[in-house]
Amino acid sequence: METLIQPKVLKGFRDILPEAEIRRSVLTEKLTATFRSFGFVPIDTPALEYSEILLRKSNGETEKQVFRFEDNGKRDVSLRFDLTVPFARFIAEHKDELYFPFKRYHIAKVWRGEKPQAGRYREFVQCDFDMVGTDSAAADFEILSLMKTALAAIGVEKVHIHLSHRGVFNAFLANINASELSEDILRTVDKLNKIGQEEVIKLLTEQLSTVDSATAADKAQSILKFISGADSFDATLALMKELAGDSELATASIKRLDELHAMMKATGIEASFVLDPSITRGLDYYTGVVYETFLDDLPSIGSVCSGGRYDNLAGLYMKEKVSGVGSSIGLDRLLAGLEMLGAVEQKRSFLDAEVFCLDATLAAHYQMVAGKMRSQGIAVEVFPDAKKINQQYNVTDKKGVPFGILIKAEDAAKNVLTLKNLKTREQFEGITIEKAIELIKA
Amino acid sequence: METLIQPKVLKGFRDILPEAEIRRSVLTEKLTATFRSFGFVPIDTPALEYSEILLRKSNGETEKQVFRFEDNGKRDVSLRFDLTVPFARFIAEHKDELYFPFKRYHIAKVWRGEKPQAGRYREFVQCDFDMVGTDSAAADFEILSLMKTALAAIGVEKVHIHLSHRGVFNAFLANINASELSEDILRTVDKLNKIGQEEVIKLLTEQLSTVDSATAADKAQSILKFISGADSFDATLALMKELAGDSELATASIKRLDELHAMMKATGIEASFVLDPSITRGLDYYTGVVYETFLDDLPSIGSVCSGGRYDNLAGLYMKEKVSGVGSSIGLDRLLAGLEMLGAVEQKRSFLDAEVFCLDATLAAHYQMVAGKMRSQGIAVEVFPDAKKINQQYNVTDKKGVPFGILIKAEDAAKNVLTLKNLKTREQFEGITIEKAIELIKA
Repeated sequence: METLIQPKVLKGFRDILPEAEIRRSVLTEKLTATFRSFGFVPIDTPALEYSEILLRKSNGETEKQVFRFEDNGKRDVSLRFDLTVPFARFIAEHKDELYFPFKRYHIAKVWRGEKPQAGRYREFVQCDFDMVGTDSAAADFEILSLMKTALAAIGVEKVHIHLSHRGVFNAFLANINASELSEDILRTVDKLNKIGQEEVIKLLTEQLSTVDSATAADKAQSILKFISGADSFDATLALMKELAGDSELATASIKRLDELHAMMKATGIEASFVLDPSITRGLDYYTGVVYETFLDDLPSIGSVCSGGRYDNLAGLYMKEKVSGVGSSIGLDRLLAGLEMLGAVEQKRSFLDAEVFCLDATLAAHYQMVAGKMRSQGIAVEVFPDAKKINQQYNVTDKKGVPFGILIKAEDAAKNVLTLKNLKTREQFEGITIEKAIELIKA
Repeated sequence: METLIQPKVLKGFRDILPEAEIRRSVLTEKLTATFRSFGFVPIDTPALEYSEILLRKSNGETEKQVFRFEDNGKRDVSLRFDLTVPFARFIAEHKDELYFPFKRYHIAKVWRGEKPQAGRYREFVQCDFDMVGTDSAAADFEILSLMKTALAAIGVEKVHIHLSHRGVFNAFLANINASELSEDILRTVDKLNKIGQEEVIKLLTEQLSTVDSATAADKAQSILKFISGADSFDATLALMKELAGDSELATASIKRLDELHAMMKATGIEASFVLDPSITRGLDYYTGVVYETFLDDLPSIGSVCSGGRYDNLAGLYMKEKVSGVGSSIGLDRLLAGLEMLGAVEQKRSFLDAEVFCLDATLAAHYQMVAGKMRSQGIAVEVFPDAKKINQQYNVTDKKGVPFGILIKAEDAAKNVLTLKNLKTREQFEGITIEKAIELIKA
């Protein structure tokens, strides 16, 4: 006999057992239904691509994390680490086969060789939705509104979407003569929640001092004032307008936020949005509106849905500029958060009923009953072996099956059955299949 | 400016564009609903595993095709090439967390570096369903019945499932003293459809001659008689019984086929099944019932759903024997076949209606109308830019949207709209949103 191989998965990878996979499937299906109701269509791209395609724009950190190798044809290939880069390549490759504005959703696995830690895996599911080929406020709003609707569809009502606009931020920095430091400033502002106001002021002052030490402290205070916002959408917008100045960029960007606010009010969803100028999405490729989403009861897990507007998605692969706006749900992080909050439906199977096996010679009869029930939309399985009834009950317990169907030889002869509510133990004896279907559906 | 990178996918890989991905999603969703209605639950396993786990039992052919590499932690890893090996590893690893009989479905991508050819890709979707931990006829039947029901659910009614039993075949070979040649014989029998009866007889005779040249020709004829079957389930079963002899294996295996036939008749699906002793599933690990499924109108594409019973699924990873029965749908092959037959629903989006953008200043009003409609279950999108109406119609054409909603400033003021059936061009002017919802739903 051969030695046994120890059954185990790779470090940072995991199996998903039925209960968890049911939760993930149900969540995914509700999100999918919402995307479709907004006119988004699905696409798929390969898990494996040329490394050159995936990694050209990446920084060293990404490159270290990627699963990259030489395939049997000596090609330098990598597993995708996000869905954005493949989407950019997809748009460039298929632009003549698509129509614009183009709205796609893509829910799929990505791989990153990160150091494994609690809740972080090397294989995880991303859920992206983007609308490309339009610069309009309507498109920005559609993504924001879709985020709100999709989260509500999966039962996440206690949530706020924090948004800002990179154009206003850039105009503001220009207004205080700090554009040249924008990368450093963005990086510091991004740390606000982690390190606190005092530390941010200190860092900003240091950074600004490298250019003009006389004005550094004032400018740092001004930046803090900008990113702290005020206590309402309108008041914050007024503050941003005041600080950003009246350049063309400032005016257009403030106007965009104003239009989005009007749409939020028109659709009655404004309470879910916070105008929050501290949101910048770091050094990403965003150029317009940007947003992050936090669970009210669990802000500590960070943003569960983020994104923004970009003005040149596929610039690495084609000359034409395609702008767009999109968002990404970190499905595994969101699911982990909802589980911590006890806010996910627990389902152990999709079964409505179990036909118990009381008599192996009735196997064909049991199948007939199950077949009739399924044709009426009842999810039902037949217990396959004539095991002790307690062992059979044990399995229906584990699967959370609500109804049991008991048929002895004399019942089969009369074509009747006993229906048992497995929770209440209530029994209906000697009823027809049709009656049982009625009772299960009720 | 940097040089552009040519946007292209790897040889043997492909993007799936919206129309094709919608077809695949709709198919997958219908299959999923069917699996669930039989009590099957989903699981997931990693795309990447230790090569040792995936490749131990594989033959050289598989090994050559697999995407195998050393990861950043110097581990020897491979992309999975099927869903069966990971399932075996999963069962061994989690047996104490699961309940038996355990029924799972798994629809996921697998990767094989095969020579690309028409309809063959290096990345494709498999759809597996298995029931493990029971030896019963009820379990065999459940898989067969599920195959029939799942195919019917996706509109494939003109289909036949050909089944046989490896036990009967083995008993028959023992009965004619040809067991020691069973591997060669199986390999030859498997070629029947490809090379024809005459060639099969010739090959069999050669093979049998190596043991006893006097009886070789007779035995070859006997094998041909066995695999040719007769013209009905009952007649074929009688023939198999006659030729297989009365060993314990023969008796038990014939009894199993008899029981399955009784269940097919009890559930009224017997016309979809053909007892076909030429089905052996080659040299696979099957030990009981085996089956393949052919489209009546396109048998040339081969089996679209195959499987069988195995008696030791996870033997490489644990001492306990777990037997089971399962089947696998070649989703991409099936989809390709259905497309050739024109038997797939063509859908270009999931939209019911499009709110056209006639006046950019009404953007918030358009969003309000769309929001109201979505809350009533209507899938609707807002055209995001005030482009020429013909350009807007062009996009709704491409997306196959059935209804258009037209709202000018004076309509918005009165909170009415014009609903247009985009196929018939019929128009309903000056109606309320509620009336429009009613008409779209009707």
